[in-house]
Amino acid sequence: MVDYADIAAAYEVLRPVVKQTPLERSKTFSEMTEADLYLKLENLQTTGSFKLRGAYNKIHRLNNEEKRRGVICASAGNHAQGVAHAATLLDVSSTVYMPRYAPPTKIIATRSYGAEVILEGETYDDAHEAAVGHAERDGLTFVPAFNDPDVIAGQGTIGIEMHRALQDIDVVLVPVGGGGLISGVAVALKHLQPDVTVIGVEAEGAQAMYRSLQQGEPTPLTSMSTIADGIAVKHPGMLTFEHVRRYVDDMITVTDEEIARTLYMLMQRAKLVVEPAGAAGLAAVLCGTVSYPSENIVALLSGGNINLLLLTQTIERGMMQHDLLSRFAVTVPDRPHMLGRILDTLAELNVNVQSISHDRMTTSVPIGHVKIIVTFQTLGAEQISQVERALRERELPYERLQ
Amino acid sequence: MVDYADIAAAYEVLRPVVKQTPLERSKTFSEMTEADLYLKLENLQTTGSFKLRGAYNKIHRLNNEEKRRGVICASAGNHAQGVAHAATLLDVSSTVYMPRYAPPTKIIATRSYGAEVILEGETYDDAHEAAVGHAERDGLTFVPAFNDPDVIAGQGTIGIEMHRALQDIDVVLVPVGGGGLISGVAVALKHLQPDVTVIGVEAEGAQAMYRSLQQGEPTPLTSMSTIADGIAVKHPGMLTFEHVRRYVDDMITVTDEEIARTLYMLMQRAKLVVEPAGAAGLAAVLCGTVSYPSENIVALLSGGNINLLLLTQTIERGMMQHDLLSRFAVTVPDRPHMLGRILDTLAELNVNVQSISHDRMTTSVPIGHVKIIVTFQTLGAEQISQVERALRERELPYERLQ
Repeated sequence: MVDYADIAAAYEVLRPVVKQTPLERSKTFSEMTEADLYLKLENLQTTGSFKLRGAYNKIHRLNNEEKRRGVICASAGNHAQGVAHAATLLDVSSTVYMPRYAPPTKIIATRSYGAEVILEGETYDDAHEAAVGHAERDGLTFVPAFNDPDVIAGQGTIGIEMHRALQDIDVVLVPVGGGGLISGVAVALKHLQPDVTVIGVEAEGAQAMYRSLQQGEPTPLTSMSTIADGIAVKHPGMLTFEHVRRYVDDMITVTDEEIARTLYMLMQRAKLVVEPAGAAGLAAVLCGTVSYPSENIVALLSGGNINLLLLTQTIERGMMQHDLLSRFAVTVPDRPHMLGRILDTLAELNVNVQSISHDRMTTSVPIGHVKIIVTFQTLGAEQISQVERALRERELPYERLQ
Repeated sequence: MVDYADIAAAYEVLRPVVKQTPLERSKTFSEMTEADLYLKLENLQTTGSFKLRGAYNKIHRLNNEEKRRGVICASAGNHAQGVAHAATLLDVSSTVYMPRYAPPTKIIATRSYGAEVILEGETYDDAHEAAVGHAERDGLTFVPAFNDPDVIAGQGTIGIEMHRALQDIDVVLVPVGGGGLISGVAVALKHLQPDVTVIGVEAEGAQAMYRSLQQGEPTPLTSMSTIADGIAVKHPGMLTFEHVRRYVDDMITVTDEEIARTLYMLMQRAKLVVEPAGAAGLAAVLCGTVSYPSENIVALLSGGNINLLLLTQTIERGMMQHDLLSRFAVTVPDRPHMLGRILDTLAELNVNVQSISHDRMTTSVPIGHVKIIVTFQTLGAEQISQVERALRERELPYERLQ
């Protein structure tokens, strides 16, 4: 088991290399949760996630011969970038296996940090197997993503930083995939402040750790489904399982919908880009899975490496949910002035049209009619009601789309 | 003129109220600029911008009778939120005039901070005139957006914070609209570190301060055009003009295109949401308008209140420019298997299709043919060349769209 001394040693190793990321109180989120809510901005870490810490601590501790031979790992995500950058900083060569369908931006980033990227297999498991084979063949050191004491100790340095920034943390919410991050953070914080409550948060579609705790042993999932790719882990580790069982107070889950809403609020209110996995902890308290009124809560935002196209989708959905964007289908006779009438109605209410499309083919539209779909920006629910009233008054049959 | 003592006094007033925002070194941007580049994250300030500082300092210094009567301002942007929140914190009532077409999110946010929002007139000037009339009529204190010593002193506290976080700043890049921010920051920093170079950055389409310096007096612009609404100011103030003339080393400009590219890089690499005006300073050094090799540069990111739909557009354009998203028009006979052939070609190259549309009507397409527009994600320029080669080999005539 990892103990506090391991993490304190890692802290000294990492101090000159990694960012001591800010711990910021959020006024908006504090009001929403009726608590004092702080965000640990590990999304601002070099490489865009906490993974650099564990990887650097692990590679730093290798002997010279091991360093000379180089390191290898399998990852489609943040661990890849962490290993690549840590190895380059330590002048060690690195090889990263990714499945063939890894996101382009992750491949590019990992290469830019200095690793040789090899695309192999359809799934992470395929890539992992190939990497292990390659490691044995060439005598390279395999850097595990979580199930390793040096990696856990590296991630635990976040706990020390949190405590330095805020001495009386009541609750800390940590995203859980393989469990390396929460293992380290829990060991560090429980040592520094034994009365702290450590909550692990998994995606509903990938709750390997929760299931494993129920079963009393690490239990692999047969399938997973979540947008939070950074915490979609099938096989929890034995070592992280033991740490979680011993140090973590509770494991809870959040849905993809809750994560997406949280990503939107993080951009809109906190001005931060966070990846789905990184927002799981905050989602649990913002969306009401758990509630700690008047307490000092720290939500660990573990990473920011999101596919930016997913971000655009999140923004549009978020605006729709907050009634800032609205979509109506108006069915009218297919005649020249009808579109103008709809647009005039909206213009009078000071509503800004975003896009328009015509549908003449759907069988729900009477022949000779057209369904005009208008997307527009609004001030909120009240203005949407005004639009509905105005369309009714002008006898323009409409349907609000979600 | 504002002096350092005014700013030091404002610093004590603001310390318990505003965030001491982080100053973070960016590894990526440092490498891109061959310098040590730090970001002052004022986009993480409460209300999403630095405007809270000046407004709070101004309202705090009013006498009890003035506070009892309340404050008023005109703004379509961050100043509105700053005044509303500062007034509420000080238990003072506030009224904000905005032009009728102010962005919905700004109206909502200003109301949520406790102000009464009045929409009046077509332009900012109209709203301003109405607010001044209202102030005189009801004996309210008008809070200027920049041309006021207490406001300037409040904004200057950012200079003190920067110096506390980093003692040897060589160059600081500050977005300039009315000039309140740069006036305060320049006075503070030049006092604390006389050899610092302070550069003001305006949008190319709104360079009122540069023109005024050339003319030797505050000179209003007749027209403006920029996406950086936060620094689109027609009438520079007399007071800020004098401060800029005396304390600022140089004024430069950036284009909207450069600002948009910078917003994209801030999201993609730094995981930060910044508004166009807030990114102007960083844009100047990232896009090569100025260059300070090996120096300690601080770019002040002054705000984060961006219309999120503009953000989605910025992401898509940014990905297009970085060859991560690509659009081809392929003209083929209008027959069933043609679309499949195009998609197979892309799938073989491991390219992820984002959207498809058909155009049969443009006159550039021979009759009986269809132009299929495919948007897809790629790994970069090299993979786009592979796509072009594959389309040529299959004799599918294409055109790359920008």
